[in-house]
Amino acid sequence: MQAAQYIGNKSFNIVEGTSIKPKAGEIRLSVGYVGICGTDMHIYHGVMDQRVSIPQTIGHEISGVVAEIGEGVEGFAVGENVVVRPLDWCGDCPTCNAGHTHICQNLKFMGIDTPGAFQSSWTVKARTLHKLPAGVDLKQGALIEPLSVACHDVRRSRLQAGEKVVVLGGGPIGQLVAAVAKSVGAEVLVSEPNESRRAFADELGVKSVNPIEEDLAAYVDSWTQTKGADVVFEVSGVKPAIEAMTEIAGRRGRIVMVAIHSVKPEIDLFQFFWKELELLGARVYEAADFDWAIELISSGQIDLKPFISSVSSLTDIGSAFASMDGNPEGMKALVECNPQ
Amino acid sequence: MQAAQYIGNKSFNIVEGTSIKPKAGEIRLSVGYVGICGTDMHIYHGVMDQRVSIPQTIGHEISGVVAEIGEGVEGFAVGENVVVRPLDWCGDCPTCNAGHTHICQNLKFMGIDTPGAFQSSWTVKARTLHKLPAGVDLKQGALIEPLSVACHDVRRSRLQAGEKVVVLGGGPIGQLVAAVAKSVGAEVLVSEPNESRRAFADELGVKSVNPIEEDLAAYVDSWTQTKGADVVFEVSGVKPAIEAMTEIAGRRGRIVMVAIHSVKPEIDLFQFFWKELELLGARVYEAADFDWAIELISSGQIDLKPFISSVSSLTDIGSAFASMDGNPEGMKALVECNPQ
Repeated sequence: MQAAQYIGNKSFNIVEGTSIKPKAGEIRLSVGYVGICGTDMHIYHGVMDQRVSIPQTIGHEISGVVAEIGEGVEGFAVGENVVVRPLDWCGDCPTCNAGHTHICQNLKFMGIDTPGAFQSSWTVKARTLHKLPAGVDLKQGALIEPLSVACHDVRRSRLQAGEKVVVLGGGPIGQLVAAVAKSVGAEVLVSEPNESRRAFADELGVKSVNPIEEDLAAYVDSWTQTKGADVVFEVSGVKPAIEAMTEIAGRRGRIVMVAIHSVKPEIDLFQFFWKELELLGARVYEAADFDWAIELISSGQIDLKPFISSVSSLTDIGSAFASMDGNPEGMKALVECNPQ
Repeated sequence: MQAAQYIGNKSFNIVEGTSIKPKAGEIRLSVGYVGICGTDMHIYHGVMDQRVSIPQTIGHEISGVVAEIGEGVEGFAVGENVVVRPLDWCGDCPTCNAGHTHICQNLKFMGIDTPGAFQSSWTVKARTLHKLPAGVDLKQGALIEPLSVACHDVRRSRLQAGEKVVVLGGGPIGQLVAAVAKSVGAEVLVSEPNESRRAFADELGVKSVNPIEEDLAAYVDSWTQTKGADVVFEVSGVKPAIEAMTEIAGRRGRIVMVAIHSVKPEIDLFQFFWKELELLGARVYEAADFDWAIELISSGQIDLKPFISSVSSLTDIGSAFASMDGNPEGMKALVECNPQ
């Protein structure tokens, strides 16, 4: 079997990996497709080298086929299509005990903290698996993980049908958040400077606006008849969005913090007081988010095919990463880990 | 009748006011006691001179007796003790229509935006009144308004019995928040540098800590067995508290922003992501908060008497303000507006 190892400095080695026999409670997968995530791009750029043990097989947006089943695992059969919820929680800390295993105090993220999916065979705990129903192919399956991020963000916002939503940032996660919000019955506006990303939002059937050319606050004020947005998703990670979010949110508006801000931005706390705003941090997903994401695809409510920008072979992983680097037009690049 | 008018520059004039006959839907009160609020101190210091129309009768923490009843008002009788919820909402904006009249888009705060209670007779809309039950005297009644602020803050936090709460700042509102949180069955820690305020918290039956002398984060980590605080109330308005709040809150912790931060502080957004924190803005109160506050007093669950630091006559209002200025030991100064 083959495995792609990140070796630092925007580079991968393709090595002859080891197929790991599943222990009790584990399943070995024949990996189908693996998507390149924004976090993988961060790793590629070296900014997470202190967290990732080089050389490391990364990758966590994965679909695959059950190849071998470990002792004591029930409910799975060889040949079934599955996706992985790539979280390894301890099950013992106060947060796990409270039922929030996805933010476990000792959480290991598979594909970052432990080996990941850019290989032809991957052995994982069976508790991380969700089955793909017939009609959802393995390519779409590789996008269930980022779609589950969007489902989690929307669940955190308590979004209701008929509410008005602004998504700040039209990258892959922003567009998926827009799609999920639309599926709930919300009216959605994507704020995004890049023209091709705005065009993508338009194709998705939601509104879009260029916040560089237009006064976003005035636009939202008019669109909402002075009420302001019911929900704002901050998915851009840029400073102007931090300023905009408190301005465009209406009274009792909920702001979901999806982007990772590693510097501490200045935030208009007065608006939190004045409008009784809520800021809701959101991290990864829970099992219910994967279930919802799979349902959204299998029911046809969301079509993930337009999100797939390219499909490369595992041996071409280096050029797949390079082609996504600084390319705002690319939504999701997939790597095929076993020729189908 | 007498009225105290704020005339700017830390000064009041005592004038012969006009007793206003109640119109339809209004009630005229014989004012009992009026508390001096932190906001009144801000006005006194001139920082709100652009909002307050000088000369202005301010004051909004009030108890009184029904003196005269306007046309069409039902359910009140002359001689009844009442308190005023000093909010004047439009009833027409999207926020009012959504039921959030307390953050109405056209809200007028009585005693700031319109004439207030530092006078012997005050005419208000009957819809702003809550009745005081027998056993709650007019002095305690004047503290129902700040207690309702605390009730609103605690309601916003969705606090549950058994949860661990840190209150950052042990001024009057911080101590009232601590008292309400304790009444819910939470374990409460007040973080406050001032010794007399910590002693006040101790008297209240909650824990206290000096964040200057002790490492607050380490203290909370140990107190909560690494879980972190379930709820943090930021009531101090100072920068170190902004840094502490994201550090001491546990996973899925709720931070209620009670203090008014007029500058934009730097906030550790990464912690919102990592721990899925919530920041909840809280402003004034709703009718349910007044009902709860009155119930807490009349049932004896909270004793407001220790909060009353002094009682002055209306003619001595200037010295009452002066004695509260920069005096961290004073909790609540009352002004008696009609000799009882």
